Amino acid sequence: MIQPFDDTYFMKKALQEAELAFEKGEIPVGAVIVIDNRVIARGHNLTELLTDVTAHAEMQAITAASNFLGGKYLKDCTLYVTLEPCQMCAGALYWSQISNIVYAARDLERGCINLNTKLHPKTTIKGGVLEAEASALLKRFFIEKRNLN
Amino acid sequence: MIQPFDDTYFMKKALQEAELAFEKGEIPVGAVIVIDNRVIARGHNLTELLTDVTAHAEMQAITAASNFLGGKYLKDCTLYVTLEPCQMCAGALYWSQISNIVYAARDLERGCINLNTKLHPKTTIKGGVLEAEASALLKRFFIEKRNLN
Repeated sequence: MIQPFDDTYFMKKALQEAELAFEKGEIPVGAVIVIDNRVIARGHNLTELLTDVTAHAEMQAITAASNFLGGKYLKDCTLYVTLEPCQMCAGALYWSQISNIVYAARDLERGCINLNTKLHPKTTIKGGVLEAEASALLKRFFIEKRNLN
Repeated sequence: MIQPFDDTYFMKKALQEAELAFEKGEIPVGAVIVIDNRVIARGHNLTELLTDVTAHAEMQAITAASNFLGGKYLKDCTLYVTLEPCQMCAGALYWSQISNIVYAARDLERGCINLNTKLHPKTTIKGGVLEAEASALLKRFFIEKRNLN
């Protein structure tokens, strides 16, 4: 049987979240958490609206997924996020013992890979899914912001 | 004039928070954030009660301090925390650009120092303030927990 659910499908869901952040004037990053092909949590960056540096898309999705599951460990879950997680979010993902992380665009300067943030040994990480789309949205945001200032 | 406010004074406030966590059956870690010798935010570990790995003492204190200040940057603020921050909390502190971090006990395995979490260049970090008291509380928690199981 043809399987409609794949990494691209769920990354599109994360991109929808990123677009919601964009519309609110936030750096457009979105995330969803999936278990058994079902989205159980969503989040988008709200650091400006909440004046809170901890309000990254991933942090909200982690809290929402734990709430949904009734437990703090995200075993068998996959996070889809449009930008490589930062140290804070990767540190939270470490504690969550999440099974998989899939990101779209790399963050060479502030992402967890180049900063060597430790992930849980049970966690896999891969990138590049819809990278062009996620990067284009981020670029559009920063160009519009520059033009406004 | 004699100054009653020093690192020990504020770390005692953080230890009071850690004791609240202890009483709730949480790993006893507490934190306060101080500006101009005034405590503007408090937090204690609530990961079990909230079933949320992001509910560390520091994270709650950062959110509360930003809320109090009406801005997401914790310039001129000092965080007092009874245990060296983990990667997640240090990552949040990086984004907050907090001026100073003072911790009590080291966390050699999961603390930000040995895991090389990047702090903001404007941030200073020092440890060892009331280290014995903070460590004793943590040890008592794990001994009692072991005896219960």
